[in-house]
Amino acid sequence: MSELPYKEVEVAGDKSSDVVWHQASVSHEQRVELNGHKPAVLWFTGLSGSGKSTVANAVDRMLHDLGCKTYVLDGDNIRHGLNGDLSFSDKDRIENIRRIGEVSKLFVDAGLLVSTAFISPFTQDREMVRQQLKQGEFIEVFIDTPIAVCEQRDPKGLYKKARAGEIKNFTGIDSAYELPENPEIHVKTAEISIKDCAEQVVNFLVDNGYVQSGTRNS
Amino acid sequence: MSELPYKEVEVAGDKSSDVVWHQASVSHEQRVELNGHKPAVLWFTGLSGSGKSTVANAVDRMLHDLGCKTYVLDGDNIRHGLNGDLSFSDKDRIENIRRIGEVSKLFVDAGLLVSTAFISPFTQDREMVRQQLKQGEFIEVFIDTPIAVCEQRDPKGLYKKARAGEIKNFTGIDSAYELPENPEIHVKTAEISIKDCAEQVVNFLVDNGYVQSGTRNS
Repeated sequence: MSELPYKEVEVAGDKSSDVVWHQASVSHEQRVELNGHKPAVLWFTGLSGSGKSTVANAVDRMLHDLGCKTYVLDGDNIRHGLNGDLSFSDKDRIENIRRIGEVSKLFVDAGLLVSTAFISPFTQDREMVRQQLKQGEFIEVFIDTPIAVCEQRDPKGLYKKARAGEIKNFTGIDSAYELPENPEIHVKTAEISIKDCAEQVVNFLVDNGYVQSGTRNS
Repeated sequence: MSELPYKEVEVAGDKSSDVVWHQASVSHEQRVELNGHKPAVLWFTGLSGSGKSTVANAVDRMLHDLGCKTYVLDGDNIRHGLNGDLSFSDKDRIENIRRIGEVSKLFVDAGLLVSTAFISPFTQDREMVRQQLKQGEFIEVFIDTPIAVCEQRDPKGLYKKARAGEIKNFTGIDSAYELPENPEIHVKTAEISIKDCAEQVVNFLVDNGYVQSGTRNS
């Protein structure tokens, strides 16, 4: 037997050793209170090249400047770290999203506003993450950019390769992107500036009581 | 092909779409500055019943009361979530610790002081996590409680079952606990109170410039 089966036991056991500290654990509510804003995951979804990471980072910057405690999960810090052991199989694709959802949940529990920027093309996967979180903690942000625009941006020529058949199962070309049916926020990067896109997201957070506008909460 | 291969591409692609926001991402240093203290992982290790969770939560409470941004990873929030898919095999035991290390790394990157409370009996696994982090970001806290004391606490009778041979490979009985050779902090719960144990850890953080004593940083 290994690490895992003893954990639950240990929590109870340790607590019994010192009654004074039994209920001293910092509660979720206390973490939220210290941070001065409501926590949530902003789940950015959209095609490759749609602008998810750009808008997510712009939102993160604005929230940070408001004093919010934030973080961004994206390919840069997930792909070669936590999910570095995953392949591109269907099973591992789901596991990829599941783990990102679970990590998001931990960040939300810690009281942060965490933004995730992953294509996450399938409704079932996105709904899995929504179910992992509580009501109001999962905010789906659909970065709705026409594929023609994404394909024109095509910075590393991936769309070109997909069109030429050199890459298989490319989202939007020969693999489906399932449109979000009721995203909390619907952003159109081809119609407004990145700054306006980010403000649209921040305004949602202000209007729905997650964040106070203009107040530095820290 | 699935989610993963497009992430790196996307980051570059998105950035090219709006030069103004290209370098707008919040840096690690800016997150640290906002929080007002240095981030790190406090890696509590010790036998089942040694007091890891108790001391970790007491430390977390003290740091929170100082205004530090903190979180605790333990069996309660990891076992049935992120690592709920893992078995008790040797391979999964290592994967369990690897993921906890990677998640700790994300929290440290976000600027938090994160405490982890897992037996983590093997030097190799603990060193793996140390290597995942930068110099000074990994603080090993050895909760050094004699097995006789742990066994006396034995709140769920696990030691009793292990002695009777009903549980196999129980750490400290018929599976090794490899002593930390050079832990940053060496805590003896059988000799001082939980409060004193926690203060020992907090004092280390103050003495080494992670946290300012007596100042509410938030």
